[in-house]
Amino acid sequence: MVKRDKSTGIVETRYYTFAYPPSELKLESGERFGPLTLAYETYGKLNSDRSNAILILHALTGDAHAAGFHPGDKDPGWWDNMIGPGKAFDTRQYFVICSNVLGGCRGSTGPSSINPLTGRSFGLQFPLVTIKDMVRAQRYLIDFLGIDRLLAVAGGSMGGMQALQWVASYPERVRSVIPIATTMTHSPQQIAFNEVGRQAIMADPNWNGGDYYGKDLPAKGLSVARMVGHITYMSDVSMGEKFGRKFRNIKQPFKFSPEFEVEGYLQYRGDNFIRRFDPNSYLYITKAIDYFDLANGTALRDVFKGITSPFLIIAFKSDWLYPAYQSQEIARACKLAGIEAIYCELNSNYGHDAFLVEVTEQAHLIKHFLKRLAENYRVAHASNS
Amino acid sequence: MVKRDKSTGIVETRYYTFAYPPSELKLESGERFGPLTLAYETYGKLNSDRSNAILILHALTGDAHAAGFHPGDKDPGWWDNMIGPGKAFDTRQYFVICSNVLGGCRGSTGPSSINPLTGRSFGLQFPLVTIKDMVRAQRYLIDFLGIDRLLAVAGGSMGGMQALQWVASYPERVRSVIPIATTMTHSPQQIAFNEVGRQAIMADPNWNGGDYYGKDLPAKGLSVARMVGHITYMSDVSMGEKFGRKFRNIKQPFKFSPEFEVEGYLQYRGDNFIRRFDPNSYLYITKAIDYFDLANGTALRDVFKGITSPFLIIAFKSDWLYPAYQSQEIARACKLAGIEAIYCELNSNYGHDAFLVEVTEQAHLIKHFLKRLAENYRVAHASNS
Repeated sequence: MVKRDKSTGIVETRYYTFAYPPSELKLESGERFGPLTLAYETYGKLNSDRSNAILILHALTGDAHAAGFHPGDKDPGWWDNMIGPGKAFDTRQYFVICSNVLGGCRGSTGPSSINPLTGRSFGLQFPLVTIKDMVRAQRYLIDFLGIDRLLAVAGGSMGGMQALQWVASYPERVRSVIPIATTMTHSPQQIAFNEVGRQAIMADPNWNGGDYYGKDLPAKGLSVARMVGHITYMSDVSMGEKFGRKFRNIKQPFKFSPEFEVEGYLQYRGDNFIRRFDPNSYLYITKAIDYFDLANGTALRDVFKGITSPFLIIAFKSDWLYPAYQSQEIARACKLAGIEAIYCELNSNYGHDAFLVEVTEQAHLIKHFLKRLAENYRVAHASNS
Repeated sequence: MVKRDKSTGIVETRYYTFAYPPSELKLESGERFGPLTLAYETYGKLNSDRSNAILILHALTGDAHAAGFHPGDKDPGWWDNMIGPGKAFDTRQYFVICSNVLGGCRGSTGPSSINPLTGRSFGLQFPLVTIKDMVRAQRYLIDFLGIDRLLAVAGGSMGGMQALQWVASYPERVRSVIPIATTMTHSPQQIAFNEVGRQAIMADPNWNGGDYYGKDLPAKGLSVARMVGHITYMSDVSMGEKFGRKFRNIKQPFKFSPEFEVEGYLQYRGDNFIRRFDPNSYLYITKAIDYFDLANGTALRDVFKGITSPFLIIAFKSDWLYPAYQSQEIARACKLAGIEAIYCELNSNYGHDAFLVEVTEQAHLIKHFLKRLAENYRVAHASNS
């Protein structure tokens, strides 16, 4: 389905290890942690005045590989339909960066990384990290890349939380913000779904208090966690359309094996997940998401006080995991702070997954939002010179 | 909170074992099974012409103990707020019956019962049972109680499915139907949530292929299943109101133990569930629910063809597990069959749990529906005599 001529082509993951002061990151908990590595990819070219950089932020199980192909791969990066020549994030015009989060398991330092003090994987010795910590680590990467001000920070789900945290932590470093299918505050229902996933992992005896590296993995627990996740990413309608009540063609006698298509799909997705995701990373990252509370008691009018970067806020009608009212709350906070904010609620049956698959309208909105930003920048730059 | 003077008082569970032909029940699968026992309770008195009997049908984890108190218990039966003197199902006027379903673990024959052929619990030797089978077993109980025609069959959730199956299987035995917060067909999303619960149970090594009786129980797996269930029984709003983002007062160092109130609540409810529910019953009953498809390819206009019993159909706006559109579909099928059907969608923030806790309006509707039925019966009976 993906046409290679509209792709960024063959790409490569790079690694940035903090090797200059601060070699340790001061975490929100007060703990100091380091050295640490962030895996990242870039697409397109940074222009001469370094004004065309866009930072893409990934969701819970995403990684640095957002677009293009790794050598030998059949499937492209996770947002390839949005990043590339002529796409929403047009790599002919913009320099696009994506990094795997701190705490992750796809090249960035996380609980599966080797603890230099012990020579073994951190496991639960890894410190608690927050969305703010993830963003702080990314800031050093952006420094390293020599970018003073990002044209945009953009992402869906947990990526949207990072985008919001970016502008809250470093307002002078962010020219615009594109939070998609996300929230300013994780709700108890959202926490509850994450907690079920964590409990499923920790109920697996192979989890062993987080110390399973080099041994049998808590694959069944992680699989159940992933299954819960998948239900929340889809919608009642999209599940109805995709599976209905269709039965699979199975021959074995009845012993509670998956019979319905939907059961087979969930089991397949659950079972495969262990090949690419570390269960402890799942614990740490879901916890970071649950802690996320940008307002944290602040009055709504003060959440974005002093920020001037425009927002493009996108929500999807059938997304019940991050319902539209949470995006409306972001828009309300923007308006109260006098920020220029566009709020768009898109029709889609895909539920939360819509931000990954419902491309056409989303791409149109982003393309024009970025175009106007870039034009405004050129006008301002020309009149200043 | 419960006033004992408005209660049915001390009640007792009874047991009916099929001891006359058919001593075996022919199951929908074709298999024959028996002898079998149903646990049941009754409240109020059967009148002289046996026209005041109402059958209450319970949900997934319910049991025969719907009202009143067992000796020494602090808490009454699960629908005590709806069954009793002056309540929705007024025990001064009606003879109310509730039985534990076939496949259950609260006194009726189920996978934890002793298989007479082996002297050990059935485990997965227990046959697959369906909602139709549950209803067929109940019919023998109703025969045994000497009731030719029930004034009403009523229940929420899986109880509603049984009510629908009752009128479909035995239209001449049912004078009216009260399906609450239920569906004619389990949707793929609903199947998916049940499947996650089953996978969590079966992922627990203590489950041991269903053979755990007298050994360590798969308590952690069942706990995760129950946690998923609880999220789906509540609503985003009710979780927000009950828990918010409140933290629990815990002292131990951070090791992914429950910190948020909502996490503690889920864990508490999950951990306690093993004391009253058999994990294999959870597998069998959720499977029966998933198989439920009253239409099963039949055109909507033919689903209730030939049925004349009036329906009172109740749904709750915030119920996202059994959304109102599924109750509307029942009402539509009634109207197409020319059945007198009242459809009421009640405001409540409690989600699916509303059928258990949102009493006032629900009771009002049911009371008046039953009153009119009883009056119509008296008028018809008087003119016939």
